[in-house]
Amino acid sequence: MSFIHPDFMLQTETAKKLYHEHAEKMPIIDYHCHLVPQQIAENIQFRDITQLWLVDGHYGDHYKWRAMRANGVSEDYLTGGKYTAWETFQRWAETVPYTMRNPLYHWTHLELSRVFGIDKLLCPATAREIFDECNAKLATPEFRGQELIKKFNVEVVCTTDDPADDLRWHKMIKEHPFGVKVIPAWRPDRAMAIESPTYRDYLHQLEDAAGMSIDSYADLCEALQKRHDFFAANGCKLSDHGLENFYSAKYKDIEIELIFKKVLIGFAPTPEEVDKFRSAFLHDQAVMDAEAGWAQQYHIGAIRNNNTKMFAEVGADTGFDAIHDLDIATAGHRFFDRLTQEGKLAKTILYCLNPKDNPVMMTMAYTFNDGTYPGKMQFGSGWWFLDQEVGMRRQMDSLSNLGLISRFVGMLTDSRSFVSYPRHEYFRRILCDVFGKDVERGKLPVSEMDFIGQMIEDICYNNAKNYFQF
Amino acid sequence: MSFIHPDFMLQTETAKKLYHEHAEKMPIIDYHCHLVPQQIAENIQFRDITQLWLVDGHYGDHYKWRAMRANGVSEDYLTGGKYTAWETFQRWAETVPYTMRNPLYHWTHLELSRVFGIDKLLCPATAREIFDECNAKLATPEFRGQELIKKFNVEVVCTTDDPADDLRWHKMIKEHPFGVKVIPAWRPDRAMAIESPTYRDYLHQLEDAAGMSIDSYADLCEALQKRHDFFAANGCKLSDHGLENFYSAKYKDIEIELIFKKVLIGFAPTPEEVDKFRSAFLHDQAVMDAEAGWAQQYHIGAIRNNNTKMFAEVGADTGFDAIHDLDIATAGHRFFDRLTQEGKLAKTILYCLNPKDNPVMMTMAYTFNDGTYPGKMQFGSGWWFLDQEVGMRRQMDSLSNLGLISRFVGMLTDSRSFVSYPRHEYFRRILCDVFGKDVERGKLPVSEMDFIGQMIEDICYNNAKNYFQF
Amino acid sequence: MSFIHPDFMLQTETAKKLYHEHAEKMPIIDYHCHLVPQQIAENIQFRDITQLWLVDGHYGDHYKWRAMRANGVSEDYLTGGKYTAWETFQRWAETVPYTMRNPLYHWTHLELSRVFGIDKLLCPATAREIFDECNAKLATPEFRGQELIKKFNVEVVCTTDDPADDLRWHKMIKEHPFGVKVIPAWRPDRAMAIESPTYRDYLHQLEDAAGMSIDSYADLCEALQKRHDFFAANGCKLSDHGLENFYSAKYKDIEIELIFKKVLIGFAPTPEEVDKFRSAFLHDQAVMDAEAGWAQQYHIGAIRNNNTKMFAEVGADTGFDAIHDLDIATAGHRFFDRLTQEGKLAKTILYCLNPKDNPVMMTMAYTFNDGTYPGKMQFGSGWWFLDQEVGMRRQMDSLSNLGLISRFVGMLTDSRSFVSYPRHEYFRRILCDVFGKDVERGKLPVSEMDFIGQMIEDICYNNAKNYFQF
Repeated sequence: MSFIHPDFMLQTETAKKLYHEHAEKMPIIDYHCHLVPQQIAENIQFRDITQLWLVDGHYGDHYKWRAMRANGVSEDYLTGGKYTAWETFQRWAETVPYTMRNPLYHWTHLELSRVFGIDKLLCPATAREIFDECNAKLATPEFRGQELIKKFNVEVVCTTDDPADDLRWHKMIKEHPFGVKVIPAWRPDRAMAIESPTYRDYLHQLEDAAGMSIDSYADLCEALQKRHDFFAANGCKLSDHGLENFYSAKYKDIEIELIFKKVLIGFAPTPEEVDKFRSAFLHDQAVMDAEAGWAQQYHIGAIRNNNTKMFAEVGADTGFDAIHDLDIATAGHRFFDRLTQEGKLAKTILYCLNPKDNPVMMTMAYTFNDGTYPGKMQFGSGWWFLDQEVGMRRQMDSLSNLGLISRFVGMLTDSRSFVSYPRHEYFRRILCDVFGKDVERGKLPVSEMDFIGQMIEDICYNNAKNYFQF
Repeated sequence: MSFIHPDFMLQTETAKKLYHEHAEKMPIIDYHCHLVPQQIAENIQFRDITQLWLVDGHYGDHYKWRAMRANGVSEDYLTGGKYTAWETFQRWAETVPYTMRNPLYHWTHLELSRVFGIDKLLCPATAREIFDECNAKLATPEFRGQELIKKFNVEVVCTTDDPADDLRWHKMIKEHPFGVKVIPAWRPDRAMAIESPTYRDYLHQLEDAAGMSIDSYADLCEALQKRHDFFAANGCKLSDHGLENFYSAKYKDIEIELIFKKVLIGFAPTPEEVDKFRSAFLHDQAVMDAEAGWAQQYHIGAIRNNNTKMFAEVGADTGFDAIHDLDIATAGHRFFDRLTQEGKLAKTILYCLNPKDNPVMMTMAYTFNDGTYPGKMQFGSGWWFLDQEVGMRRQMDSLSNLGLISRFVGMLTDSRSFVSYPRHEYFRRILCDVFGKDVERGKLPVSEMDFIGQMIEDICYNNAKNYFQF
Repeated sequence: MSFIHPDFMLQTETAKKLYHEHAEKMPIIDYHCHLVPQQIAENIQFRDITQLWLVDGHYGDHYKWRAMRANGVSEDYLTGGKYTAWETFQRWAETVPYTMRNPLYHWTHLELSRVFGIDKLLCPATAREIFDECNAKLATPEFRGQELIKKFNVEVVCTTDDPADDLRWHKMIKEHPFGVKVIPAWRPDRAMAIESPTYRDYLHQLEDAAGMSIDSYADLCEALQKRHDFFAANGCKLSDHGLENFYSAKYKDIEIELIFKKVLIGFAPTPEEVDKFRSAFLHDQAVMDAEAGWAQQYHIGAIRNNNTKMFAEVGADTGFDAIHDLDIATAGHRFFDRLTQEGKLAKTILYCLNPKDNPVMMTMAYTFNDGTYPGKMQFGSGWWFLDQEVGMRRQMDSLSNLGLISRFVGMLTDSRSFVSYPRHEYFRRILCDVFGKDVERGKLPVSEMDFIGQMIEDICYNNAKNYFQF
């Protein structure tokens, strides 16, 4: 039997039933990912499996890079660009068996199976054969970017876009539809980063995009509002923030103006000023989302760019980030409490990277549910380092024990890869396994299998469809 | 087979044996709950299941409220008082299926089964039938408050009482015994709350109760000692504190006097002063408990009243609290270390609300065991948000891995409901399942089943009986 | 069947196969322990099982002491020295059944079985018999210290030694080899402890050892370098630090000199000065290790000597320590980032005592892997309070989900006992059970059993052998 067989990860008969009769057939709404719109629009044809999987210009799969470095693979094969596609792939093939029990082992073989129809296990002995077979397929029209997405019954994809983005690629996709709805999502991290040395350069991009000059924080808000409206006009219904923590320092409006002016004329803000600015900025963004009827997402808890040497050499998002351990309850509650008092709380999804925060996040989210919409504020899927079996099971358990998993909007890929959709399958298999085990152990009533099947379908698809209204 | 069948939650034969031969028969000592003494004394007759389960004047079941809000039920049905008992119950019946995997799903059906003998699952289709059947039963004398308690083989109930309470209802219960010992427990939270705008009003109540004026911190201590003696004379042997964290700031006695005076004349204390006052107060309370031979409980780790809008509208304890994430080790150790140095450490039970604190709490508690009494200082049962299967299993595992589960005083309801005693059953089933699995996996010797059965009985009843000496 | 039978802890056929065909046969490299070199060199003959297990002069097994205190055993039996060996052993025998589900229950019976060939369960009824049988055996030459070690196929033992140690006992062992390599490990905790009242006394010891006077921090570093070289010449390849947290405050060299001078002339350093000193000291130690090609270990997260009364009465390491809850990410990353920038990062193993830190530690370690050696920086085995089944499973899961368990250097005893080697067996059984379950659930491919068997052997032995190069 193949390693990736039809009942992979499904440990009970009930789990199999739930998966094959309910989960499997549901379309995918991938409401948060990092696909590059240009690559979709241009319907990218990948040179080879190394480009698809490992190194694509300055980018690549930092999950794999991290594992390879830990396995003793030299940087030269990764960001170094010193070796051929085959040589780099060889190093990955050598590493794969050493990733057993890591999600990469399952992802790799799911992708080989689901994308390429290859059931062999990747290892040095099979490397050449798999390399050649993948490359041959990637050279065909059936394996161009849009086709790769379509293989997986994807209905909607939300990319992650900067407010200054002109959305030209999104427009091109809209003009040449290929059967999958591709929608921008609003990610204003750069507009918040006043501590960044390139902040003023960024403001110029934003000025150009908004068609106005930005000489004050009020201007910044106005420019962002214009872009927010523009995004909305282009189908956007969802924002996202990548944060170390929540920010909800007390501030006066005039302070924010002064901090912003100080930065505009070239001074560096103090840590306290950065905190206040972020607090104001995030709040004002949240109000914007609420007024537009969008949903908002907060990804909390990474400590980034910790390896200064490698950051200098290869830049951000290259596998040198980690899980942070800040406290989040006080700032988080204050942030959402203010929005609630003002009547400006949008639908909200919270994600944490440190599993110690699961129960804190869950109870925080549920403290602001107000009965206006089922699951209005909720705790999102296991993210990044937590996007693995144990991480997902824990997230599902927190969600269940402290709230309503029935109202969960479910999985997303959060990925830059055209072939990461099997992660939805992986999530669904684990979800069905969780419910299947509970039914077989008598913790859920077997008489309610119809309702449970419906709940599985909801978590896989319907909840997201109703929640986001794309 | 019914959902709640005789072997519910018992996954091995050994678990079934342990439960049916040992756990099931033991009486209940509910050493910490929030039953309203007046309702016990007056032997309350509930109007309907909605009053019993959902809304009782300004109070109600915030666990259920929270789930209903998250399920999209308007506040009007809960605290709003705008709908009939049936209409509110309908909303709950609609919500119940969506609580699958939440403890509410198990609690609800355990209560229907154990209290009302109803084996149907609650859902919209069964709502009317169940509503009517429950209400018919609640109208009979067999379903008045005292009878509800007696159904569950309860031997002792400890309520939670303010030092200013005159214990009139406890006296009335004592004068009209109904077969269950009802004992007050000392909860001086309001006496510690100098930051509260109503603190001086509270002091007047305390002055009246103690029959003395309170013009200094020394007076406060004297008044509390009088009340402590009065509680002791009324059978109290147990205190409880609901705290964000432990407090053990350094202070001088004169500082505490000055802080207290400052508050007395109407000034608000600074955060640092509040911290010092709490440190002194909690310490002096602990000394009082030690000298009286009582046991003391510390419930640590909630962040409360986080939704200002709803707090203003519906007040405290209505489902807008959450799990906090403060560090507890430094302050906690310093607090108990001082008591140990002074030879004033009472029997102590620590409860945490954030599961990240389980190992910290456990090792803290065991650092002060001194061989004078088995389990003198210990880590208490999964509390509030952690009062569910996963939470209980984790607490039992921390207790076992880092200490002696054999000496555990076991479960308590911590509830305001007359029908929450099935939570003891639920706990016992999980406890037996934990030990049963260990025996069947060879992690505990099958030859020691008698000893293990005895240990189960101890945890269910004997340990609490010996520990508290009610 | 005996409680400790051949398949103890092995729940699947695959687990049994992995254990019996792969794990069981591998030698032990106990790369971190607290055996007393003098006791090895003198080939200690234990008076009785009480000395071996419970009380040995001022020392003893604080795990057991802690459990006994919590079980109501008076200090007089432990550190008190008021009772005979038999009387103390009796108290332990009474306590043992109450330790069910604690690792002590398994350790005790594993040691009885593996060391003494006794299959009876220890309890009051068997206490005398077991006491006598153990003592009779301990009186024979086959149960002297060196023989006890040799029973367990131990290849290497690393003790834990102070830089001022003259390593005379290590030299004696080398001159009289007994078949097990005994190597010193460098633990400079006392040299860092400038806040200690005995620090200056310690410096005098270090001056004598290094043959130079220490009048400055530069001198201290020079003296330590001499000792480091001396340790290296005596086979040392490994350092260890026992820390509350990582330290990486910013400082100038001149500040460190001034702090050190201040301490030398008898002033107490401020907390901030202690922090800076530790930051400099730890960094300079890490550079020393990197330059010597050693590996370094960091044990983080205990809060020690929390019971002042007992510390005054019986000293450190007597069972009054606990799990701390400080944040570690910021300081930890800064510490290793600096070393990376300087090109001075040695092979590094991180251990945490608070399980909330597992994911933080894991991702921190992997942020500094640079492809030069497989598993160069890694997350170490469950330590102290976490050295139990649940703790080990969680460590293995973090290691797997967030990295490469295949490159793990595996288990160590961290123990002062001559009979703690069954903890390696215990670890291996759990390790095999983890992999066995994954294979049988289809999470690892059954076709790869050879590779998996090899991986088990690697984790048990080969990885450590290659990593440390003893």
